Formats: sequence, C-alpha cells, structure tokens
Amino acid sequence: MNFKRNEALEILGRTPTTLENFLSGLSLGWMECNEGEGTWNPTQVVDHLIECERNNWVPRLKTMVEEGGNKVFPPFDRDAHITNPSKTSLSQKLNEFKCLRFQNTEIVRGLIISDTQLELTGKHPAFGEVKLSELLSTWVVHDLTHISQIVRVMAERYREDVGPWEAYLGVLKN
Amino acid sequence: MNFKRNEALEILGRTPTTLENFLSGLSLGWMECNEGEGTWNPTQVVDHLIECERNNWVPRLKTMVEEGGNKVFPPFDRDAHITNPSKTSLSQKLNEFKCLRFQNTEIVRGLIISDTQLELTGKHPAFGEVKLSELLSTWVVHDLTHISQIVRVMAERYREDVGPWEAYLGVLKN
Repeated sequence: MNFKRNEALEILGRTPTTLENFLSGLSLGWMECNEGEGTWNPTQVVDHLIECERNNWVPRLKTMVEEGGNKVFPPFDRDAHITNPSKTSLSQKLNEFKCLRFQNTEIVRGLIISDTQLELTGKHPAFGEVKLSELLSTWVVHDLTHISQIVRVMAERYREDVGPWEAYLGVLKN
Repeated sequence: MNFKRNEALEILGRTPTTLENFLSGLSLGWMECNEGEGTWNPTQVVDHLIECERNNWVPRLKTMVEEGGNKVFPPFDRDAHITNPSKTSLSQKLNEFKCLRFQNTEIVRGLIISDTQLELTGKHPAFGEVKLSELLSTWVVHDLTHISQIVRVMAERYREDVGPWEAYLGVLKN
C-alpha cells in the first residue's frame, strides 16, 4: 500500500487552489466546451466536485467511523449537478469548493488519528465491503480523474487546430 | 478553427502557476513516482517543459516569422532533460518555468499581431509544412498533455490502494 494519510491530504488540500489558478478568468469557450452530448464541461466538473464534498466523501467516512462495517453508505447521485444545476458564477463555485474541501480535510484530520482506523469498513451499494483506506485513496484519485478530465476536454477543443501534431499529443489519444 | 491567439495565451499563462500550486511542497513519494522504467516522474515532466520553453516553441515560432516557409525548424531533443538532468530543486524548476513562460508569451504578444500571420508556415522535420496557428495550438495542447501526464502518473501510485473503486476512476483506465 502506498497510501499515507498525510500524503493523501497534501493532494486533497491542493486541488481547489490548483483549479482556481487554472480556471479563474478563462474565456467561456474554454469553460463551456465538452466532448459531445451527455459529457461535462469544466464548469460542470467543478459542480460535481462540490456535490461530492457535500454528499459523498464525508458522509461515507462518517458511516465507517461511527456506524461500522454493516451500514450501507448513504445514497449519492453523480448526476445531481446536471438535473439540478446551480446558478452560481464560476468564481463562486471555485470558492465554495475550496471552503467545503477545507472543512472536510479538517474533519479527516480530526477523525482519522491512527493507522488502525484505515482498516475500518463500510458497505458500498455496488461493491459491498470496502476499507476506509480505499475510500480515502479513491477521494485522491477522484480529484486526479477530474483534473485529467478537465484538461482532456479543453484539449479536445483544439484537436483539429494542432494539425499533424495530433499524432504526438498524448491527451488527444482517446 | 477554434484557435484564437488570446484564448491560447490564457492557458499558456496559467500553466506555470497551476503546476506551482499543485506540486510545490509535495512529498517525494508524489514527485518521484513514475509509470515504470523509461517513463517520466512529475519532476522530469517539469524539466521537459523548461527544455521546450528554451529550445522548442519560440525558436520554431521565430523561424516561421523571420525566415518563412522553407526553413526547417531548429532541432529539438525531447530527452535532453534525461540525458543531461539539471540539479536544481523543484522550487527552482517551477520558478524557472514560470519566468521562461512569461518571457515567451511576451514574445508571442509582440510578434503575432495580426490573424494573417497565423497562416505563416515552417518545415517540421517529420511532418513537413505546418502553420503558425498549428504551432501555437500545439503549444497549448502540449501543456494540457503534460498536466494530464502528471496527474495520471500520480494516480497510478494509488491504483492498488483504491480497491474496487478502480472500475469507476477514469484516470486509471490505460
């Protein structure tokens, strides 16, 4: 296992400011591009990250710590931000994500104080038993997945424009 | 064509501070992980970006603007940072990248002042004739490719640790 609580927190703490730095003030062309019907644009990815801070990671973590292994996680709707879109500006969204993430990483620091807790379990609705270390690792890789998604979506916008260089550009290979 | 000079400059200007935000102060475990022998770790990706600022984008751009369509681009060694590794710290590397990128985007602002210049051509050693708009688009997508590479390499480190969630995490699908 490569997972260590503090190294995971390093990434979790950096994602909101990284996205703020990368996305703040970009033209709408960048923020509203997607990969075709039914796919998310960068703004919608930020909405999804907010939704996860509210209703996924910490509720699941608390279920594991407070209720033990037999309790199924509270439900999470990964399309909630599409069916019920928020009307806030990008700058408000990025701030909201930053605040929620700060509060949530403080909760992790307070709740997870020993390595033995990493073995605690909970019940995922699809996978069955999962470990607390797997949940925290997934939270990190979920951040990385969505940073990767944002840059891939933005790169797609220039697929035709790069001409023959398309052959050399890894992010366009999908 | 989606390419617009100023929108491209928005991305080019944000990449160094985005990487600085994301990578500064990370544990060595994150900065030295890679995807197996012969692959680059996040620090080496930053070295490569510096090498490109020095010897790729602007020399090629100047060849197009100053010498016209028949001149082949000056050579570029994409493994230079591996065969001749720099001994600077990560913080120095990130600063160097930021300074070089700032100088180079200023050069673009000074040199490329009309849309007709986007049709200027140069000779790529492998592809033959390429357009200035293609070079600038590629510069942007090259940034996105390497941000994507960094997060993919870091995600790989937790592939085993996420347990069954691997199935849901796009960045691990390769």
